[in-house]
Amino acid sequence: MSHYQAPLRDIAFVQQELLQVEQYFQATDCWQEMNAELMDAVLNESAKFCEEVLAPLNAVGDSEGCQWYDGEVTTPTGFKEAYKQYVEGGWPALEGDEAFGGQAFPKSIAIAVTEMSGTANWAWSMYPGLSHGACHTISHHGSEEQKQQFMPKLVDGSWTGTMCLTESHCGSDLGMLRTKAEPNGDGSYAISGTKIFISSGEHDMAENIIHIVLARLPGAPKGTKGISLFIVPKFLVASDGKLGERNALSCGSLEHKMGIHGNATCVMNFDGATGYLIGEENRGLNAMFTFMNTARIGTAAQGLAHAEWAYQNSLAYARDRTQMRALSGPKAPDKEADPIIVHADVRRMLMTQKVFAEGARMLVYWVAQLSDQTVQPAGSDADKAEELLSLLTPIAKAFATETGFEAANLGLQIFGGHGYIKEWGMEQNVRDSRISMLYEGTTGIQSLDLLGRKILLKAGEPLKLLITEMSAFCKEQGDNPEMAQFIAPLENLLKAWGDNTMKIGMAAMQNQDEVNAACVDYLMYSGYITYAYLWAKAAAVAQQKLNDSDDDFYRNKVYSAQFYFQRILPRTASLEQTMMSGVNNLISEQVDPFAM
Amino acid sequence: MSHYQAPLRDIAFVQQELLQVEQYFQATDCWQEMNAELMDAVLNESAKFCEEVLAPLNAVGDSEGCQWYDGEVTTPTGFKEAYKQYVEGGWPALEGDEAFGGQAFPKSIAIAVTEMSGTANWAWSMYPGLSHGACHTISHHGSEEQKQQFMPKLVDGSWTGTMCLTESHCGSDLGMLRTKAEPNGDGSYAISGTKIFISSGEHDMAENIIHIVLARLPGAPKGTKGISLFIVPKFLVASDGKLGERNALSCGSLEHKMGIHGNATCVMNFDGATGYLIGEENRGLNAMFTFMNTARIGTAAQGLAHAEWAYQNSLAYARDRTQMRALSGPKAPDKEADPIIVHADVRRMLMTQKVFAEGARMLVYWVAQLSDQTVQPAGSDADKAEELLSLLTPIAKAFATETGFEAANLGLQIFGGHGYIKEWGMEQNVRDSRISMLYEGTTGIQSLDLLGRKILLKAGEPLKLLITEMSAFCKEQGDNPEMAQFIAPLENLLKAWGDNTMKIGMAAMQNQDEVNAACVDYLMYSGYITYAYLWAKAAAVAQQKLNDSDDDFYRNKVYSAQFYFQRILPRTASLEQTMMSGVNNLISEQVDPFAM
Repeated sequence: MSHYQAPLRDIAFVQQELLQVEQYFQATDCWQEMNAELMDAVLNESAKFCEEVLAPLNAVGDSEGCQWYDGEVTTPTGFKEAYKQYVEGGWPALEGDEAFGGQAFPKSIAIAVTEMSGTANWAWSMYPGLSHGACHTISHHGSEEQKQQFMPKLVDGSWTGTMCLTESHCGSDLGMLRTKAEPNGDGSYAISGTKIFISSGEHDMAENIIHIVLARLPGAPKGTKGISLFIVPKFLVASDGKLGERNALSCGSLEHKMGIHGNATCVMNFDGATGYLIGEENRGLNAMFTFMNTARIGTAAQGLAHAEWAYQNSLAYARDRTQMRALSGPKAPDKEADPIIVHADVRRMLMTQKVFAEGARMLVYWVAQLSDQTVQPAGSDADKAEELLSLLTPIAKAFATETGFEAANLGLQIFGGHGYIKEWGMEQNVRDSRISMLYEGTTGIQSLDLLGRKILLKAGEPLKLLITEMSAFCKEQGDNPEMAQFIAPLENLLKAWGDNTMKIGMAAMQNQDEVNAACVDYLMYSGYITYAYLWAKAAAVAQQKLNDSDDDFYRNKVYSAQFYFQRILPRTASLEQTMMSGVNNLISEQVDPFAM
Repeated sequence: MSHYQAPLRDIAFVQQELLQVEQYFQATDCWQEMNAELMDAVLNESAKFCEEVLAPLNAVGDSEGCQWYDGEVTTPTGFKEAYKQYVEGGWPALEGDEAFGGQAFPKSIAIAVTEMSGTANWAWSMYPGLSHGACHTISHHGSEEQKQQFMPKLVDGSWTGTMCLTESHCGSDLGMLRTKAEPNGDGSYAISGTKIFISSGEHDMAENIIHIVLARLPGAPKGTKGISLFIVPKFLVASDGKLGERNALSCGSLEHKMGIHGNATCVMNFDGATGYLIGEENRGLNAMFTFMNTARIGTAAQGLAHAEWAYQNSLAYARDRTQMRALSGPKAPDKEADPIIVHADVRRMLMTQKVFAEGARMLVYWVAQLSDQTVQPAGSDADKAEELLSLLTPIAKAFATETGFEAANLGLQIFGGHGYIKEWGMEQNVRDSRISMLYEGTTGIQSLDLLGRKILLKAGEPLKLLITEMSAFCKEQGDNPEMAQFIAPLENLLKAWGDNTMKIGMAAMQNQDEVNAACVDYLMYSGYITYAYLWAKAAAVAQQKLNDSDDDFYRNKVYSAQFYFQRILPRTASLEQTMMSGVNNLISEQVDPFAM
């Protein structure tokens, strides 16, 4: 019963007007031919595929799920055919390396394809999504021979990839992992162990599956410094790229999950499977981190996806469903009751979804552009882009998924009792979105990464850089009276953000647990401020446009920014109090609050 | 994999120390024999049944669900047998009218049985839970003959009951309902129409099912003033109480829901079914409201139930699961990693669950006691109890379920990726809890009831009464230096609560939509203040006890109150800003923010 229409207008607004990607591409060495016309063509084509092929399979994927039989996994009806179309359309190669048949599109463009396919059908989009991770890892850390052997088929989508990290006893703490890699004497290794939660670990959509596996070499140091990375294909691959015999690995079972039923989450058993070392021995985790940052941007896009899906479907329902009269008097006197969109509280929920979806779009696309700028600075500073990217990634991952879940949950609420019933698709959206705050590092792990590693360990430098950039925007707008409603509160928050960070840093010098006590509220606080900056920027762009145009789109943007500042941003007031309240209300030497 | 242990100590604390129910019972006319010993005996017995019989069926109910075949519904394995044991134990009759074989226990005691059975297995507990509603309605509004005919078997649990309100096009707005009741000429009526979302509408656990149905008589006025109430039994009942022929009603299908799979949510078709008018013609909705208030207390208990379940299971997991070291250094150096309970952020989540569960217990039990006081004032004022009950009911219903859902969701988060997997039971708890913010009136409906009907329509009088009671407690504690940490912020908030309410009332005189624009944030704000009052009271009781005892239980209470005031109560700061931000950021004559 749910539907999807790609929000091409808002995507174009963010890419072209807010982030001015076209100007950026023109200043790069390799993307000069990327212009608005090309982008429109690509995104329109992708939108069509997502709306017509992927979206209708979203509910099917949930209700059928994946089926396991004797190690083989069957994906839901239509998934395989959709993937075939996707491959024929050349989509897997969009971001791929040109040397291996890729189209080398910038992430600034490709992120819109990620958004649209993910919104239309997140569970399906994880199959090609995970392949990007495997590609990325081999292309950055593999040998020339490995690249020749594996990349072409991964890039064209004939094969898919996975990332095999988690084991049943270790998720966040990969230092504890036990999977073993023993040298076979011929340069390859025998991989043995069991991995869990392996997304797309086994399926019927591609000829081969290339697993990237974390394992320990004999005598490797304990902890994270003794982990190496291996390529372990489902079918062995001859040097000419032809498929050989089946490797000694198999899917032992599928996990029964809350959501994303259309994606096969596998227990993978490696029984002396042949694997090939990527990169240096014992440096696997470092190589993995490159990939994990990219994956985190992908997961941030999932937050955007579920917020957008919730918003579109709630809006349609709120316009259609009639129930009670507006308190201020009938708005649809010809009907038995008013459509529920007239009720202020329903509008509050819809507006919240809207500013979270559009806010996530701005942040995720900005992060994608920063990622491009680390390789193609185009007159800007690559190191600065790297620093901002690394700071904003945990915010985008955790904040966009937490607020995405909130938006999904509001979607269910707007449908009332009907939201709880499967046929409307709103409860699926909640269940599907819930994983996003867990995998690729939980919200807690992102928060520690942000406050501990990215800020305090670097003496606050990356945050200063970000605040400086945001303050520059505030100064620039200082003379604009229409922008004062945004700039004044934003400037106050930027100052408080810096001051509060310093105070937490001081407290952490006395007791490291202070970081853990503050981190999640701190991340959420940072997220609200970051969205405030982006909403203010969107309002500035829109107000500028309104000088020469009477387009309602821009008027709505300003209004949405006002909503964000008045109804959402005040959450920083309570987060500030709680994150500054210290560790003593959580850990006490005198009291064990959990004793009964 | 999940477990349940009835929190008897905390239940006793709330009933006996905080609410002093024993002293209250002694002052009543009819409950003088209810003492701590009797309560302990009853609650221990109930706890045993809930822990040993109901809790193990919770996961079974979710995975099997109910099965529909040709109008008949089979409940999950074990549900029927558990219900048989429950009936044999005499539990259905606990609160029942003595005239019909009931034990006439006060709600102040029975609420603990509701909590425990609901926590152990919410979906199961809905079968007997709904019967209470039917009983209540017949006993308050039925004729003497109807009572004789239906009450004994409902009270002893041989039959169960339902409430048939919702139709596909009307949920919140019952004025639109279309089910018809036409006089048969013999005093009975022919009921025709389709009702949806009927919990326990059909099942295999009892001999008969008594439906209480809302329908319209021929020529009845439009809207809510033309609704009448009917008793419509599944099997007709002779005047001697013997079962007669099958009535013309049937379950057309089961809804496919997000959760509470163990409860049969039915589409009920009435095809000229024989029904009997209860109470006056066209006054059905008034009669229904008596019931709905009781049902709302039951749903508030559901919020408590899911928070308690989440807390208990998360706590056990957090003590067992090892992952990473505390930032301040190893706490379990003999293990490969520390149990995750050492991490401040995990403790923050556990404490949040704890203060929501225990806070809900205080509020729900207080409301139950107020309900008793409306019939047995025992020296206090019955009208005042009625006024407070009516004010606190929407707060309890919406706030305890919203925070219960938050606690359930934190439970999933504490389990990390494992929380997303069905076998751990945490995702079921989230899915099951989600309905509680929808049925018996959504959070939005409760909020309108609170701010619109219960406060502004009565010129704020009920709120003044509540604030006066809370302020009296603050004054009483004014000299206690250990209580200053709680009393000072609470007094400020009580003042602000009154002032803000007045301001919203003034704004609403200009534009009624202001009520709808403020209501949900206003209800949440009211909820946080209400819990603050209860937590301060709990701290005062505990501190008093600590003068003569060294019991860690009391030390933990004070610590939990501190956590509540420092980490949760600050949310009022942002809610105050958003609820006072006015309707203009939601409704504008210049902008349609939802136009694309």
